[in-house]
Amino acid sequence: MQTLSLPDSGLAPLLPGQRLARGVCRHLRSHDFVSVVELVPTPGLRVDVMALGPKGEIWVVECKSSRADYQSDRKWQGYLDWCDRFFFAVDEAFPVDLLPEGTGLMLADGYDAEILRMGPEGRLAPARRKAVTQGFARHAALRLQGLRDPGAFPG
Amino acid sequence: MQTLSLPDSGLAPLLPGQRLARGVCRHLRSHDFVSVVELVPTPGLRVDVMALGPKGEIWVVECKSSRADYQSDRKWQGYLDWCDRFFFAVDEAFPVDLLPEGTGLMLADGYDAEILRMGPEGRLAPARRKAVTQGFARHAALRLQGLRDPGAFPG
Repeated sequence: MQTLSLPDSGLAPLLPGQRLARGVCRHLRSHDFVSVVELVPTPGLRVDVMALGPKGEIWVVECKSSRADYQSDRKWQGYLDWCDRFFFAVDEAFPVDLLPEGTGLMLADGYDAEILRMGPEGRLAPARRKAVTQGFARHAALRLQGLRDPGAFPG
Repeated sequence: MQTLSLPDSGLAPLLPGQRLARGVCRHLRSHDFVSVVELVPTPGLRVDVMALGPKGEIWVVECKSSRADYQSDRKWQGYLDWCDRFFFAVDEAFPVDLLPEGTGLMLADGYDAEILRMGPEGRLAPARRKAVTQGFARHAALRLQGLRDPGAFPG
């Protein structure tokens, strides 16, 4: 898979899907949502972006960089159980007619995104929401500690 | 205030209280707690360490690097409303007799810590716990995004 370097970021080169995720996370800030990437809500599932809103809303965004990337994903319906709203995020070259109806849609690049269609709301049950919020918090705090203090994770 | 450089960390020099916080956060990992530092649970209060346990427990740890540091803090009782357990963390030179009974105590340095006395449990009410957990998640995710993608926070 081709990697693209983003010279303004100071980060390692990002894969195309990671570029979209970066733009999505930036855009979500403008809705007062905070985000993490590549979170595992349950073994066997990994979401590209999970976002937490100001009222505790949980959104999941799957970033699809190409037709092949989308068509190789047989798991996305499994993500619906882990969020209040679900979106795909694609770039402007993506054939959006491929995407199923009844899902949210964001148009993204590495710098920003916009919401073209809201995902329908399927609110999490309270116990699930509590577990997902705690999982989000643990994921974010662990990654943050890993960056702030690499010595905390020897080996 | 004197700053101490930790050559193994690759981070900017840390203040004495921040060194203790680093050791505390490392130790808390061994209890399966994740941690953030310098979180503001409510305007006017800032906790040195807030930790989230595997069952959703919230602990707050205030790091006191000296007698003067402790005696200048008139806010610590306010932290009790924002956690299930409260601890002070001090280094081995600290005169622990100064500390109030009925609080937890950790002995820490920049590399690790140990729990000498558990803080008594005062469990958060469910609505408060939900708000604190969301606040923890938002704090961690924002700081993480700021480190991963500095361009997300222009200006």
